[in-house]
Amino acid sequence: MMAERPQIYHCLNSRQFSRPFVEEACRLADMARMIGKTKAGMEFLSTVFNDKRAMLFFTQPSTRTFLSFFSACQILGMHCAEVRDSRTSSEVKGESEEDTLRTFSSFFDLIIMRHYEAGLAETIAALLDQTERPVPVINAGSGKDQHPTQALLDIYTLKRCFQAQGGIDGKCIAFVGDLLRGRTIRSLSLLLSKYDDVKMVFVAPSAFQAGRDILSSLEEEGVSYQLEEDFESVIPRVDAIYMTRLQDEWDKEGHASSTIDMNRYSFQARHLALLRPHAVLLHPLPRRQEIAPEVDGDPRAVYWRQVRNGMWIRVALIALIFQRQERIIEYFQQADRRER
Amino acid sequence: MMAERPQIYHCLNSRQFSRPFVEEACRLADMARMIGKTKAGMEFLSTVFNDKRAMLFFTQPSTRTFLSFFSACQILGMHCAEVRDSRTSSEVKGESEEDTLRTFSSFFDLIIMRHYEAGLAETIAALLDQTERPVPVINAGSGKDQHPTQALLDIYTLKRCFQAQGGIDGKCIAFVGDLLRGRTIRSLSLLLSKYDDVKMVFVAPSAFQAGRDILSSLEEEGVSYQLEEDFESVIPRVDAIYMTRLQDEWDKEGHASSTIDMNRYSFQARHLALLRPHAVLLHPLPRRQEIAPEVDGDPRAVYWRQVRNGMWIRVALIALIFQRQERIIEYFQQADRRER
Amino acid sequence: MMAERPQIYHCLNSRQFSRPFVEEACRLADMARMIGKTKAGMEFLSTVFNDKRAMLFFTQPSTRTFLSFFSACQILGMHCAEVRDSRTSSEVKGESEEDTLRTFSSFFDLIIMRHYEAGLAETIAALLDQTERPVPVINAGSGKDQHPTQALLDIYTLKRCFQAQGGIDGKCIAFVGDLLRGRTIRSLSLLLSKYDDVKMVFVAPSAFQAGRDILSSLEEEGVSYQLEEDFESVIPRVDAIYMTRLQDEWDKEGHASSTIDMNRYSFQARHLALLRPHAVLLHPLPRRQEIAPEVDGDPRAVYWRQVRNGMWIRVALIALIFQRQERIIEYFQQADRRER
Repeated sequence: MMAERPQIYHCLNSRQFSRPFVEEACRLADMARMIGKTKAGMEFLSTVFNDKRAMLFFTQPSTRTFLSFFSACQILGMHCAEVRDSRTSSEVKGESEEDTLRTFSSFFDLIIMRHYEAGLAETIAALLDQTERPVPVINAGSGKDQHPTQALLDIYTLKRCFQAQGGIDGKCIAFVGDLLRGRTIRSLSLLLSKYDDVKMVFVAPSAFQAGRDILSSLEEEGVSYQLEEDFESVIPRVDAIYMTRLQDEWDKEGHASSTIDMNRYSFQARHLALLRPHAVLLHPLPRRQEIAPEVDGDPRAVYWRQVRNGMWIRVALIALIFQRQERIIEYFQQADRRER
Repeated sequence: MMAERPQIYHCLNSRQFSRPFVEEACRLADMARMIGKTKAGMEFLSTVFNDKRAMLFFTQPSTRTFLSFFSACQILGMHCAEVRDSRTSSEVKGESEEDTLRTFSSFFDLIIMRHYEAGLAETIAALLDQTERPVPVINAGSGKDQHPTQALLDIYTLKRCFQAQGGIDGKCIAFVGDLLRGRTIRSLSLLLSKYDDVKMVFVAPSAFQAGRDILSSLEEEGVSYQLEEDFESVIPRVDAIYMTRLQDEWDKEGHASSTIDMNRYSFQARHLALLRPHAVLLHPLPRRQEIAPEVDGDPRAVYWRQVRNGMWIRVALIALIFQRQERIIEYFQQADRRER
Repeated sequence: MMAERPQIYHCLNSRQFSRPFVEEACRLADMARMIGKTKAGMEFLSTVFNDKRAMLFFTQPSTRTFLSFFSACQILGMHCAEVRDSRTSSEVKGESEEDTLRTFSSFFDLIIMRHYEAGLAETIAALLDQTERPVPVINAGSGKDQHPTQALLDIYTLKRCFQAQGGIDGKCIAFVGDLLRGRTIRSLSLLLSKYDDVKMVFVAPSAFQAGRDILSSLEEEGVSYQLEEDFESVIPRVDAIYMTRLQDEWDKEGHASSTIDMNRYSFQARHLALLRPHAVLLHPLPRRQEIAPEVDGDPRAVYWRQVRNGMWIRVALIALIFQRQERIIEYFQQADRRER
């Protein structure tokens, strides 16, 4: 029975997520957050993983993603330790990254890692699989490459927003900003391609338009997409707008972002009038000038809810990785029955 | 019934504390520490907030205050996360402080913050109150301005010391040292003015004497105070001496503290003979040369007890903010009954 | 009954460990790890210290030792706080180390400290013993001097490895590498001298041969030892090889390690053929070139197990310090009875 279930062990790449897996994760996240509304429910959740401990190994800093995972672990009663920099210790000079990670795996039951280097999470996962004590690895962002849990939380947010509109199938989603270097675009567009009849509009100046690799992948999946430069003309005809910021921390690699006017790719208060009534505005945060703060109060601005959705979908992901979802589902159903 | 109860939601400023609130907090702190003397009691305390999580956002470093709050949260079973510097992440460059704090409030149920900037805690509290998910904010020290929980722990210490002397009413308290720039003086003197017939003596070289703003506040409250330069003459005639250190980290703002001889404002072993038998010596710590280490062994030196009182009064404060004091009171009364 | 039991309060120096104490700690570690194999067992362990909190004060960085202690505390349900640098706070400038540690002891029930300065743990332990609220101190490594819990975990590893060979008594153990400046050698060789008829071979270039102080101690204990320069000739005739790395962080003190060829003191894949079938290869980690990664897969390479043994022996040590071993023993015996 378990064997037929869609399942992730290491979570490395958004390509791993099948649509049934995503659906199950979203349902589980919904249940966990309902359970978490009462003190008794939070107490229950904190017993689900009170025998496990997680290492958060974040050499590429990200307060936001770190706190989201940390909170998800705390909610589940999983104790955490963090290493922000493996290179602090003078005695460690000369130790290989592999030895460092293998040491962590000796102490912990789960490794959540974020790293500048693309592909390191995969390497480590493969290495640990060959040891006496393998543990699952979650990729919390690697280089310009992948950020699978961000894609998962974005999908979860879109699903919740489109609950009354028949879900994600058939929707038109615009991606706006620095599409060349933003890894959230890569992960999310690939994941969206698993839904039926989704249309995508990539809105960016030509220098930052979505890369050939992303577009090829979409073509392979038969997804219809458009490339646009004029943001304002796109606003009235889409169901969701996904804003992103300029990834200028990668500028040293040859893109002179300062020469391009990105102000044309920001959402201003006056744009709210152009946005369809049921449409929603997302942003992975942190934002700079891409969305004016006056927009925050509009009910279609859902980026703050994205933050919280991220925490709950990570709760679900961890439960699924360890195949402990049944306990949560059971508690939810019992609580649900009690209430009726 | 609840509505009539003195109550704090955000804890920003010692002016917020009414005398009944302070009394209740002190009683509650006493109960919690009595409960905490047994393993069963500590286990009970750790269930009071096992459904809540706190963010300790300390951009102005303070190991002492940090550990005190951290310990208080741990005792109550409240999980903590810490951010020492919101600026670590390169991707965060350009995010507003408001967005950063709003992100934190998405993950946590309480924000405890310490910041160089006076007034930031107030700003953040007001901002969060306008969001879908407001959470309480505790000011753990802001600029030269306020440090309300320090004032609370000082009052708690004085109350415990004067238990056999009729409490704080009618006592004479000397403040000694850099009174111009020490924020503990500001918070504590204002709070003391809510007690009956308290007299204050401010002992400092003229360059560091208490500021006009503090004195005006006391005058408004009708508190009688004296300004003194000669420390030794003051020692024999007061009930409590509150020593403070030179705040030379503010020197760049124009006060050349190095030109003033502060040795005259330190408590030496020979001063113990001048101190009244029931009088007490306080210090917010850390100390430098303001109190000689040989004084530590004297029973009237209570600054180490202040440290521990700080932890317990913060336990009480958190319980009051969330209106969970009843559970603690109930447990205390039951345990008390069992013992008899 | 309790009074007759071998017992450690402060854990400062491997000289403190009697053989009965070591045996008891190893038995307890075995029990705890057996208990920890089930969720119910981990839940039980996390109640043994759910009323206590530990301060990990690590001014000499060591991710490995830190995580090992941190994990041990988490397994026992003991909440932790960490201070990596007591000097972060500008206001703290001028506070004595003694005041800092005394502050920590006000908030916590156990201090685990690692420091560059030899002897500081002893000083602090003596200071705390004179206060109103003494707490135990564990030395997690001090200067070039002592690292008692490393010695404990090494002994624990040897005991487990030699279970089918009659234990540690009578075995021949080679220490290889920078024996002059490695503190693990000092602690472990002294502890091994409490076993019967143990022989030691110190294998190093003359510039890094074991110091006179170690050798004198062994002579006092009547331990037979040899000094060797040729590593390969030693491999076939010993029961255990303890590899160590070059301690070049101490180079500034006058030892020019760069002029000496340490490659002769590394264990290569070809050496496996020389190693006796029942012999084992240890390393305190981190390693550099002292052991080739290809050796890792051999069952006689036990350094990764050492890491995990370290966590469990620290669980045992903490339980013994607080005399809470009985609860663990009782649970183990009940679980053992249930299984049969």
